[in-house]
Amino acid sequence: MHILLTNDDGINAPGIKALWLELSQIARITVVAPDSEKSASSQAITVHHPIWVDTHCIDTPAICAWRVGGTPTDCVKVALEALLTDDRPDIIVSGINHGSNLGTDILYSGTVSAAIEGALHGLPAIAMSLDSWQPFDFMPAAKMARKIVEKMVTKCLPPNTLLNVNVPALKEEQFKGIAVTKLGVRSYENTFERRQDPRGRIYYWMSGKVSESENDPDTDIIAVKNGRVSITPIHFDLTNYGIIKAMETWEL
Amino acid sequence: MHILLTNDDGINAPGIKALWLELSQIARITVVAPDSEKSASSQAITVHHPIWVDTHCIDTPAICAWRVGGTPTDCVKVALEALLTDDRPDIIVSGINHGSNLGTDILYSGTVSAAIEGALHGLPAIAMSLDSWQPFDFMPAAKMARKIVEKMVTKCLPPNTLLNVNVPALKEEQFKGIAVTKLGVRSYENTFERRQDPRGRIYYWMSGKVSESENDPDTDIIAVKNGRVSITPIHFDLTNYGIIKAMETWEL
Repeated sequence: MHILLTNDDGINAPGIKALWLELSQIARITVVAPDSEKSASSQAITVHHPIWVDTHCIDTPAICAWRVGGTPTDCVKVALEALLTDDRPDIIVSGINHGSNLGTDILYSGTVSAAIEGALHGLPAIAMSLDSWQPFDFMPAAKMARKIVEKMVTKCLPPNTLLNVNVPALKEEQFKGIAVTKLGVRSYENTFERRQDPRGRIYYWMSGKVSESENDPDTDIIAVKNGRVSITPIHFDLTNYGIIKAMETWEL
Repeated sequence: MHILLTNDDGINAPGIKALWLELSQIARITVVAPDSEKSASSQAITVHHPIWVDTHCIDTPAICAWRVGGTPTDCVKVALEALLTDDRPDIIVSGINHGSNLGTDILYSGTVSAAIEGALHGLPAIAMSLDSWQPFDFMPAAKMARKIVEKMVTKCLPPNTLLNVNVPALKEEQFKGIAVTKLGVRSYENTFERRQDPRGRIYYWMSGKVSESENDPDTDIIAVKNGRVSITPIHFDLTNYGIIKAMETWEL
């Protein structure tokens, strides 16, 4: 098996190294990852600048990788359409993101978008995230990724479906099980802070705290809150089929 | 009526001015747009840099706008959560993009993502694109936007639904009608061109030509190809509900 790894925290982030350590026990790995942190880059691609690509070893000569001056989606595109055209991977794993990707937040996520890009290219794809913004051991999440990869290759997911996995920040033996979930709703309060620079110009910082939205018990948000590993099957057909018929009567 | 306009081609692009000229006849307009072109930025947001905001008049003092040093989604967020908290718009229109946003390509689109961000905030939202990368008159598309806005405010779309509109590059009287469509599939060939810089470093340009995928007659791609204005209702719930039950038997 040949696994393509990428992420949005950048090639030197601990999450991708943890994935390499665990998944290299069951597969040949190619890492193609951004040269620096690209959080919240969604499915952005680089069309107006060149995309530099070189090789880079992560900590040890054992983990040599393609380093890409672009977004996570750029990494997947350049991997599948340029670097690996004669050595196509069997599966793509994106992450492990340092911080959860839950509910509507996945729309902004570079980690999830890289997996979507893999699925667009017909690959089984998994996005992995750890529910902690603090330093934390990524190995329990990496082991979970291995379990899911091993299961996924024996199952036939529908085309254009990927898995979004969020792992609670707990030791492995503390996980309260695994839940197959739907996406919840995540909203924020006090998102913008207004400031003035020394030249008198106004700027804003985007920040804000998660505000507790009401979420069903079968959502990813509630699963992770309760210490469970959340796996959400994701599609990316944005057509709202249910409303087409009604709209045809609009007489525009 | 109070309409929020934004785009991804930047505040000085002709598409947003055409929208202002047409929609200011039926509503009060606030423009909050990126300071420069932000094509293909998807739903990226700016979390690691400050977001500068100032005012800027487009061509004439009549069209004064908020100019934002960020992505299209940043524009919508800063508009709704900071600049216009006491003057909430009734509807958001994003565009008119210089170039179509059809099929799977909308996943990369800053224009469509800005409309999604509006819908996430509970606003009726429309993304407008003109199917031409060459200079072309935006006014037929702007008039179409006005028609759709006028219709939309009389109809009740389900929450979390927006409209993705693509207008063929034709004179108004040459339109072959309006079609309510589903998203098609758009793929590209020869996407990456490999080059070497004067220092010997390798870089790639992302480009490529649209390759003719097979698309159903009721897709946006075929509608526009046949000279019709395409309107696709869009949602953004990425849960693949159909597969949850099957996955619950996976025994992970």
